[in-house]
Parts: sequence; structure tokens; C-alpha cells
Amino acid sequence: MYLLTNLDKTKGVNKSNIYWQRGKVQREDRERLNGHRAGLIWFTGLPGAGKSTLSKELEYKLHQKGIKTYLLDGDNIRHGLCKDLGFSKEDRKENLRRIGEVAKLFVDAGIVTIAAFASPFAEDRNLVRSLFKKEEFIEVYVKCSLEVCMQRDPKGLYKRAKQGEINNLTGFNAPYEEPENPEIIVETDKKDIESCILKILSYLEKSKIIKPVV
Amino acid sequence: MYLLTNLDKTKGVNKSNIYWQRGKVQREDRERLNGHRAGLIWFTGLPGAGKSTLSKELEYKLHQKGIKTYLLDGDNIRHGLCKDLGFSKEDRKENLRRIGEVAKLFVDAGIVTIAAFASPFAEDRNLVRSLFKKEEFIEVYVKCSLEVCMQRDPKGLYKRAKQGEINNLTGFNAPYEEPENPEIIVETDKKDIESCILKILSYLEKSKIIKPVV
Repeated sequence: MYLLTNLDKTKGVNKSNIYWQRGKVQREDRERLNGHRAGLIWFTGLPGAGKSTLSKELEYKLHQKGIKTYLLDGDNIRHGLCKDLGFSKEDRKENLRRIGEVAKLFVDAGIVTIAAFASPFAEDRNLVRSLFKKEEFIEVYVKCSLEVCMQRDPKGLYKRAKQGEINNLTGFNAPYEEPENPEIIVETDKKDIESCILKILSYLEKSKIIKPVV
Repeated sequence: MYLLTNLDKTKGVNKSNIYWQRGKVQREDRERLNGHRAGLIWFTGLPGAGKSTLSKELEYKLHQKGIKTYLLDGDNIRHGLCKDLGFSKEDRKENLRRIGEVAKLFVDAGIVTIAAFASPFAEDRNLVRSLFKKEEFIEVYVKCSLEVCMQRDPKGLYKRAKQGEINNLTGFNAPYEEPENPEIIVETDKKDIESCILKILSYLEKSKIIKPVV
């Protein structure tokens, strides 16, 4: 043990566990360095409701304010961390579990983390919620009628489902359970993006998440 | 699509994909905000070699310099993201694959990411390395004789292995493949912590990772 405790001795600290505990960087230290707190903003809603658009725009707005952000979405998760998973109910559950755990690491890293996944089942969303303190988890329900989502159909998924190529498309031929008590609801078939973003930013400014840390 | 493209129109941009692409926050933007580049510093070595101690101290030193860091280690991974995995060769491989993918997200987030895992097999370490550009991945071989590791035995693992309670302890009754071309070697049975940390910091300062971004 001699060499590994040398540094303690130079600092006049005898118990190495005390020194190393002190030396470790904690979430609070990272938040102080970043100048703001951290949390998870979770977008849920039907395909085509606007989750991706809104989450990207929110990240952009927060970044412009100097806030350290990261966006978790299908693109960077399904091709990497969860590339071993398919789209069965069980695999979707495991997909969201892993995303929740990764988001927890990002929040621990002091990052304002944004996640945009259809996440159709309340049970799965609540599992993610259970990983966080109340004030750290903000569920944003991106509400939009199926009719409008199908008109937009940005990825052509509804078209393919109508042609029988996809048989488990959320909202079309697979269930979507509406959030019962989301922190925020934005209705993208009634309001424009700017209004939706302002509503979310206004909530965040009142919440603990993006509050400046002194 | 009308409402979802309103914002584009206010900016005078007609093609919504152009606007949103522009609006998205990229890694380079996050690095600029952080003031430094990002990368992964991967500690490998026998149990008791000093990976945990060195990685914590390195994070502390970088944090003091104002660098945004995050440390991935057994504590925050095995209890969360990888809690479904055991210690078979296959599970250890999947464990490291997921850690590599998570580290990739953290590096994409602009964070100087530090990972401390025994990671005994070259194949698994190389899989992680393959996820990164050459200058982004820095393997630190924490070299220490088995004899000294067994004397230190900070977690009592060698004692339990000697008593027959653990039959796959890396270095004792399971193989450890030494890195062939690590970026850095620190010998904790020959040098004290401070010297090892200085060697790593000196390498990092010459590398691209912690270079200031203007």
C-alpha cells in the first residue's frame, strides 16, 4: 500500500479513504462548474407528433443560454447501445430501461438531458421516472391527434403501416397510453413550435433544473 | 405540416430540413461551449493495480482545471445499466460493449470521459477503441505486479479467491491480457500516484483532448 498512499502523506492526511473521498468529483461539483443544475426532460407522444422537432429546438434554445445539454434519441441509441434489441414489447421495455439508466448517468454528470422516444407504455415511462428525484424528471406529453400525425407522416411510417409493412406502429396498430400526469402538455396540432418551446422553457425556468448554481 | 414549419417561415427558410439541421446542437458546439475537446481515457489493469484511485484523482485534477469530466466505473454501471449482466465471458463482453457505447455518447456530449474497468481481454478493449477516432481514445495501462496487487487487495478479492470463494478473479485464476500498444503505461508498483497522474496529464496536454477550443 505504500506507494498508493504517498500522496496522502504529502497532504498530511493519514486515512487514505478520507483523502480520496474528498478528491472525488461529485455531481454538485460538476453542477457548480456548469453553472446550472441537471435533470431529464422526457418527450413522449405519437410518431409524427413533433417530439424530435421540439426536442432539437429545445436543446438549441438551452444551448444558446449556455446550458450544457445532451439529446438522447433513436438515432444515437438504436444504432449503438441498443443495437442488439428489436421491437418486441420486451425489447422495447429493455430499450427504455437502458435509456433511463444512461440518462441517469448524464444527469449525474450535471447535464440537462433531453430524451425523445415514443415510449407508449405508462409502465415503462414510470420505470424511467422512478430512477430520478421528483424535481429532476419532467415528462412532456407532445399531444397531437392521430389524424394530424398521419397527415405529417415525416418518416413515412403510417404509409407503410397502411400498406401492411409495419404491424406494430404506435398509435396506428399498437397502443399508445396517454400520460396521466405529465409535467407539461404541448399540443402541436393547436399551437406552433415557438409557443410549445416557450411553454416548456417557462416551466423549466420556474423549476429547479436550469436554475443557476452559485 | 403547417404548424410544425411555422418557425421556419418566420426565419425566412423554406426547407424545414435545412432549418432544423442548422438548429441542432452538434458536438463541436458543445465543445466550444465547454472550452475544450472531448475523448475517452480508458484505464485497464489488474484488480488492486490502482485504476480506481488514479481515475478518481485524474478526474479531480481535470475538474480543477475547469474541464467537464465524467467517470464511468463499476459502481455506477453494474448497479444500473448493466445490472442484468453477470460475470460470464459473454456477459463481461456485453458489459464492456455497453460501456463503450455509453462512453461514445458522453464524448459526443463534449465530456472528457474516464473509464476504469479491469477489461482483461484485448479483444474487448479493441472493440471499445474501434468506436472512436484515433486521437479520441487513450488507453492507460495501470501496470503493477500481481504480488503487489495481492498485498494491497483493497477489496479483499484476492483473499476470497485464495479461499476458493471466487474462481474467475482477473490475474489470479482468470487471464489478464496486457495491452500491446497502450497510449500510456503507469507503473504503480514503481512510482507514486502523483508521478503517475503527472505522466497522464502531460500526455493529455500534448494530445488533442483537453486542448482549448476557441
